[in-house]
Amino acid sequence: MQLTLNSPLDMHLHLRDGEMLRTVAPLSAHSFAAAIIMPNLVPPVTTVEAVTAYKGRILEGIGNEKFDPLMTLFFQESYDVAFLEKAKPYIHGIKLYPAGITTNSEGGVSTIDSAALNMTLTAMSDLEIPLLIHGESNGFVMDREKEFVPVYEDLAQKFPDLKIVMEHITTKESVAALEHHENLYATITLHHLLITLDEVAGGMLQPHLFCKPIAKRPEDREALLSVALSAHPKVMFGSDSAPHPQYAKENCGCAAGVFTAPIALPVLAQLFDTHGKLDNLQTFVSDNAQRIYNYTPPQKSVVLEKKAFTVPEKYGNVVPMYAGEEIGWCIQSVS
Amino acid sequence: MQLTLNSPLDMHLHLRDGEMLRTVAPLSAHSFAAAIIMPNLVPPVTTVEAVTAYKGRILEGIGNEKFDPLMTLFFQESYDVAFLEKAKPYIHGIKLYPAGITTNSEGGVSTIDSAALNMTLTAMSDLEIPLLIHGESNGFVMDREKEFVPVYEDLAQKFPDLKIVMEHITTKESVAALEHHENLYATITLHHLLITLDEVAGGMLQPHLFCKPIAKRPEDREALLSVALSAHPKVMFGSDSAPHPQYAKENCGCAAGVFTAPIALPVLAQLFDTHGKLDNLQTFVSDNAQRIYNYTPPQKSVVLEKKAFTVPEKYGNVVPMYAGEEIGWCIQSVS
Repeated sequence: MQLTLNSPLDMHLHLRDGEMLRTVAPLSAHSFAAAIIMPNLVPPVTTVEAVTAYKGRILEGIGNEKFDPLMTLFFQESYDVAFLEKAKPYIHGIKLYPAGITTNSEGGVSTIDSAALNMTLTAMSDLEIPLLIHGESNGFVMDREKEFVPVYEDLAQKFPDLKIVMEHITTKESVAALEHHENLYATITLHHLLITLDEVAGGMLQPHLFCKPIAKRPEDREALLSVALSAHPKVMFGSDSAPHPQYAKENCGCAAGVFTAPIALPVLAQLFDTHGKLDNLQTFVSDNAQRIYNYTPPQKSVVLEKKAFTVPEKYGNVVPMYAGEEIGWCIQSVS
Repeated sequence: MQLTLNSPLDMHLHLRDGEMLRTVAPLSAHSFAAAIIMPNLVPPVTTVEAVTAYKGRILEGIGNEKFDPLMTLFFQESYDVAFLEKAKPYIHGIKLYPAGITTNSEGGVSTIDSAALNMTLTAMSDLEIPLLIHGESNGFVMDREKEFVPVYEDLAQKFPDLKIVMEHITTKESVAALEHHENLYATITLHHLLITLDEVAGGMLQPHLFCKPIAKRPEDREALLSVALSAHPKVMFGSDSAPHPQYAKENCGCAAGVFTAPIALPVLAQLFDTHGKLDNLQTFVSDNAQRIYNYTPPQKSVVLEKKAFTVPEKYGNVVPMYAGEEIGWCIQSVS
C-alpha cells in the first residue's frame, strides 16, 4: 500500500544552528516542502538581519533539497509598527515564549498581558502576522498548559483579527479552546499523539521522550488524536522536533525535546492507517496549514509505503524517537 | 542548635546485596538503630534460610556498627500457617508487591484479592505478622496509588486484626485512608516530603529524583507533610532509600529509586526545624514505629547539629540526593 502526500509541511520545527543545523536540516528538508522555523537560538532571532542570516544558513545547510524555511521572529514587547512593516516580508509569524519556560526562552515575556502587549499585537493584527505561542504557565508541570488557556482566550478575544496558534498543544482543555474562538488554531506534534507521561516516567525513565510541554494524561492524548485524525480544520501538524546531542539527553539533568523530523511522516502514516484515517493525513499535514497561513508551498510529492523500516540508532549524535525500532511505513520516494 | 534522636528507625530500606550492600549498609547502620529491610533481591527472599543468610550478609557488611536489620519476606500466596509459624521468629513483616510494579518485583502477586490471599493473610493476622504493601495499580503513572486505595481498604476491612502498612505513600488519598481504618498505617519517605513531579520533570529531567511511586502533585506533598510534621500516630519514617549505580541512573532508561540513607536524618531535622516542628521528629522517626511494630530497638543516640554540611557527590558509585549541595544540618555524633 502506498500514500502520496503533496507538499507536507512541518509547522513547528527546531533546526538550531551550526553543526547541529547541518546535521538535522537536510533531514527535514528531504521529506517536507516547508517548515515554520523556531527562533529560539542563542541569542534569539529578533532582527530582520538575524532572520535573513539564519535563513541563509538553513538554505546552505540543506544542500540541494527543495525546501522553504518559513522564518519567525522571537517576540519582543518593543516590536512596533515600523519594525513589523519592515519585517513582514521576511517572516511568517512571531513566536512568543513566556520567559524561561523552555529551551533558550530566557529572553521571553515575563507577563503575558493583553494590555502590556497591546502595541505589538495590534500592529501584528493589522499587518496579518500570526502570533505563535508556547502556552505554559510557571505552575505545576502537569497543569501549566491548562493554566495558560485563559491567557489564550483573553488574547483571542482582545485581538479578534489576530491569528493565534497554540503551539504543540497537549491537553483536552486546549482542544476545547479551539471551538470557543474563531481565531485560535493549534499545532500538534507526533509524539503527543503517541505517548502520555506513562511512556516518559511510568516504567524506566525515558529521557528521549522528555519534552516541554510534558506528555500528559491518556484522556488528553485521546482529545489530541480525535482532532488530528479527523483533520479538524484548525489543527496543523508541527513536529516540534527538537534535536539535542545524545550526551545532553542521557545525563543528569536531561534537556527537553524529542527528535522526530526524519521519522515523522512514516509514523504519521502508520498512526492514521491504524485508525483507518489515511485519507485525512494530507489535510492534517499540509492543506490546513496552507489555508491558515495563507501560504502556497513549493510542489513536492512524498510517496510513503506500508513496508517495515528500522529507524537508525542515531542521526549524527542525535537519537531519534523509535531509535533502533521497526516501524510499519517508510518513505519510498520524494520528487 | 542541637537535637538528640534516640534510636532512629528507617522502616523501609533497600540494602541490595554483594558489593552494593557493602557500600550502603554501613551508611544506614551508622545513623539508624534499626531498619526494615526490603526482600526484593534477585531472586526474592522467600525462605527462612534466605532471610537468615541475607541477615548474616548485612551484619557482616556493617562492620562494628550497632544496627538491627529487621528482616522481611517477599510475599507469596503459598505461605501457609506452618511456614509462617516457622518464619515468625526471623521476620518483622512480609512485603507484598503487585507483580512487575517496581524494581525486582516480577515475582509479585498478579491479582491482589482478599479471597485469593485469604489463607496467607488469615495466618499472618493470627500470628501478628504485619503486611507491608507497595500499593500501586498498573494504571496511568499519576493515578496508580490512588487507584490502589480501594485494595488497601478492602484488605483492612476483611482482616481487621492484621496490621497493614501502606509503604512510601505519596498521595492525599492514602493519607485520608489512614483515618478510615484502624489497622492501616503508613511509611513516608524523605524525598516525597520534599519534592513533587516538578522537581523530577518540571525543569530539566532529574534521573536521581525518579522513583516509584513517582512524586505527585503539590497538594499531595502538603498532605504528607501535614501528617509527618505532626507525627501523626499512624505514620513512620521509611526512607525507601534505593541505591543504583550511577550508570543505571544517568542513562537511557533510568532505574527508579532515590538514595537518601546517609543524609536522611540531617535533612529531616532541617525540614522539621524549618516548619518549627523539631519536637515531633523523635516520634516520627522512632517512637511511632516502636509502638506500631511492637519493637524495642537497641539504644543509639544520634546528635544532630544545625551546621552547614556539603553532601558528597557520591558514596561509592551511588549518587545521593543533594549530591554536592549544602544542607543546613549535620550529624554531630553517634553513640
